[in-house]
Amino acid sequence: MATIDLFRKIILLSEGACDQDFPHIVIDNNSKIPDRTAFILGEGVNPTSMLIESAVKLVQFGAQVLVMPCNTAHYFYDAINEHLIAKFGVDSVVFLNMIEETVKVVIESGQQKVLLLATDGTLRSGLYQEAFSANGIDTVTLVEHEQRIIMRMIYDYKAGVREFDVDFLRQIVANGEGMAYVLGCTELPLVFEIAELIDRVINPTEILARRAIEELI
Amino acid sequence: MATIDLFRKIILLSEGACDQDFPHIVIDNNSKIPDRTAFILGEGVNPTSMLIESAVKLVQFGAQVLVMPCNTAHYFYDAINEHLIAKFGVDSVVFLNMIEETVKVVIESGQQKVLLLATDGTLRSGLYQEAFSANGIDTVTLVEHEQRIIMRMIYDYKAGVREFDVDFLRQIVANGEGMAYVLGCTELPLVFEIAELIDRVINPTEILARRAIEELI
Repeated sequence: MATIDLFRKIILLSEGACDQDFPHIVIDNNSKIPDRTAFILGEGVNPTSMLIESAVKLVQFGAQVLVMPCNTAHYFYDAINEHLIAKFGVDSVVFLNMIEETVKVVIESGQQKVLLLATDGTLRSGLYQEAFSANGIDTVTLVEHEQRIIMRMIYDYKAGVREFDVDFLRQIVANGEGMAYVLGCTELPLVFEIAELIDRVINPTEILARRAIEELI
Repeated sequence: MATIDLFRKIILLSEGACDQDFPHIVIDNNSKIPDRTAFILGEGVNPTSMLIESAVKLVQFGAQVLVMPCNTAHYFYDAINEHLIAKFGVDSVVFLNMIEETVKVVIESGQQKVLLLATDGTLRSGLYQEAFSANGIDTVTLVEHEQRIIMRMIYDYKAGVREFDVDFLRQIVANGEGMAYVLGCTELPLVFEIAELIDRVINPTEILARRAIEELI
């Protein structure tokens, strides 16, 4: 559903009078790639080789701009990108980094403090925290029992659940008042849409869609 | 948007407790394939070679079941399928035919008369009419000025329009009372969803999604 969300945003944010005006999009929705959080927490299979295989096949299919609508998978971004550069050279493909692009938007917004919602894997990787810290921005994360609820919501959404504790989400958003509020997992914008809280947050999926369109123009 | 609609239906109609339970889906959303109706009406570029190229590349990527969410493109189905069989053999890939699958559902429903909404290209191709006729089912199409309105709605939807003359659509549906009512263009379910008339029609996109899932099990 996160891939569909990104695909849909790219189409809706593109403008065209007919089919042929829209970007040519190739998707490898490879659901068999092992769980990224499980590996980062030391409990699962390493997904790196399958992520690299997917990226290589997309470039061979003709893709010139790559996007990966999974924040947690960005733990493996450098390994994938180094492989692409070694195989295809520096100039043949642009692999956008969703986390870097999101951090740039927060920097431009001028906010000094970020409330970060993400999977346990993304939090453990430290990718967002380090990128914010390098730019003088503090990152706040949830306390343990709240993080457990968010993590369960993410995995419940993947399993088809579409009803969530809206009051809990409202409270989390209220606690983030005055901070940039980053939904650092691509299932979270879908959960927050259901809760009608999506307009109050920074949405990395939308940022990635806009950047992909810019690269294509 | 028609491709997104099919993609979304396949995911929502699949059941899974985690990412890895869902089907692996590869998509070539090649917007640059020339307009199918224009060619069938003798006014445009032949899309056959690009359709074949797309199908071949998807099979080379690893696809074992092919679906094509464009009714009008089924005018070229035989040419694509013959190429696939010549290149990959009879058993390596199943290319589902949306029109045949839809006709099967209408036959099973026991209805003897069909109101067919489709592009000018699909109507001119005669694909639906011949398949229904071969099974003793009569096909009714719209009168010319109504067909012009439907054709404009399809192309307006492609161009980003999301408001339509709901009264006109309601009238069309009312005229089809007692007949199977086939939305034979993959933009039409999206238009009919906006008009909240989708539950009263036969939706080839949904039929194709269900058949794809059956093939994958």
